[in-house]
Amino acid sequence: MATTARRPVVRFAGGHRVTRPDTLAVEEPLDIRLDCGGGAETFTVTMRTPGHDLELALGFLVSEGIARRPPDVLSARHCPVAARDVEGEPTHNVVEVRLRPGIVVPAARYRQVSSACGICGTSSIDAVLASGSHSVADDGVTVSGATVVALPERLRSAQRLFDRTGGLHAAGLFTAEGELVVLREDVGRHNAVDKVVGWAFERGLLPLRGHVLQVSGRASFELVQKAWTAGCPVLAAVSAPSSLAVDLAADTGLTLVGFSRGGSFNVYAGAHRITG
Amino acid sequence: MATTARRPVVRFAGGHRVTRPDTLAVEEPLDIRLDCGGGAETFTVTMRTPGHDLELALGFLVSEGIARRPPDVLSARHCPVAARDVEGEPTHNVVEVRLRPGIVVPAARYRQVSSACGICGTSSIDAVLASGSHSVADDGVTVSGATVVALPERLRSAQRLFDRTGGLHAAGLFTAEGELVVLREDVGRHNAVDKVVGWAFERGLLPLRGHVLQVSGRASFELVQKAWTAGCPVLAAVSAPSSLAVDLAADTGLTLVGFSRGGSFNVYAGAHRITG
Repeated sequence: MATTARRPVVRFAGGHRVTRPDTLAVEEPLDIRLDCGGGAETFTVTMRTPGHDLELALGFLVSEGIARRPPDVLSARHCPVAARDVEGEPTHNVVEVRLRPGIVVPAARYRQVSSACGICGTSSIDAVLASGSHSVADDGVTVSGATVVALPERLRSAQRLFDRTGGLHAAGLFTAEGELVVLREDVGRHNAVDKVVGWAFERGLLPLRGHVLQVSGRASFELVQKAWTAGCPVLAAVSAPSSLAVDLAADTGLTLVGFSRGGSFNVYAGAHRITG
Repeated sequence: MATTARRPVVRFAGGHRVTRPDTLAVEEPLDIRLDCGGGAETFTVTMRTPGHDLELALGFLVSEGIARRPPDVLSARHCPVAARDVEGEPTHNVVEVRLRPGIVVPAARYRQVSSACGICGTSSIDAVLASGSHSVADDGVTVSGATVVALPERLRSAQRLFDRTGGLHAAGLFTAEGELVVLREDVGRHNAVDKVVGWAFERGLLPLRGHVLQVSGRASFELVQKAWTAGCPVLAAVSAPSSLAVDLAADTGLTLVGFSRGGSFNVYAGAHRITG
């Protein structure tokens, strides 16, 4: 379950060509299998950086609206039998989650945006809203502008894998005062968020009322959805949000911060929570 | 089919708080439906920036190994009946692709990495290799280091949407001499690559022998897979590659460039194609 790997690299710089070893972030498939009582079946396969796999699986199930409370999950474990590589060696690339009887698992990953009434941004938002969640609209937390501008650097300085590989997405859960609660890294930024949410789910900490989720990249529709289903009232991104991310944040009462870098930031929704 | 949208934003900078309009990249779902003779069914739904939707659908089918040659696709069009929003207005969010009879569409999007022999990086690579493709290993093209270092800036300066929104992924197809052939932008970097590949597929230009694909972000396993299935021998990324991206490039004979920025770059596989 290595998170980094060494590979030889030929570096071209200043007219010179040097061969040297380089450290890379590991990317490996994770097969998430669900067992609702009738045997485990693959629900999705995601490419991820190994580590915190159970958190990733649980956070993903929270985002999908399948697991809402700790009792919904009877067990979550790496599956030692199924997870062998082509040489027969064990891997950690299969996770099996046993769900409480009665939980209905949708057939396909894309059901949310494939509604009968047509497909558009509004129907995507409606589908997310219909899935139900913790309310964030009534979360009265406020965060000072000074705290918001400090978060990207706090996230970056806590990234252990980034330092070794030169590039990896991160998601950090912070208190409203800017204290880091937990940080996760991954080649996929959605995975990093799922790992944070799964960490909180395992500890019974959902909804994440009064917290701020800081992410390293852009803010997509999917990331806003994940913050909202986890009950986190503030999502801050270092880079640009998309139109649909902004619309979903506005409709759910979530505060969405973008372009948080170099001492300034934009608030695209829920600006009443930002003070100073 | 707008690619940008205006939203009000509250900007915090230098102790001031100013409300102003901001231009965002549009993100909307695209429902890709396949018809193999028995009626159209949803194959996948992807969140994308509208525009070049047919290219996106076709490029995605190439990457998945479903469409290989132009005759494999009987027609590709926006579906005006199904694609209405919740107010009944037409959208451009459903694309219907009619495939040549005899083409077998796999049931699930994740089949590639869910092999019976276990799941690991090696099995993922084997699954990609087994899907067959144009060979890139025998592509004798060479690219000068001076050309490689010039590509990121050429990509960036040709990005129209980035200038307006401050952040959007891009993929550019270049000749070995560094001339831009086609550029596409999207909120998802895999979508930007699919649009480029679909553009080439429509024109009968696959395989992309002798070309270089430059992308704006990191190089994942999926992007190497897309370059390889399109027969493009060189993939260059501005940021870090993952371990599995490097391994797949090495196994397929593809040249993989990473950290191409500020006048230097690293070559992680196929360095024999880079001269000077």
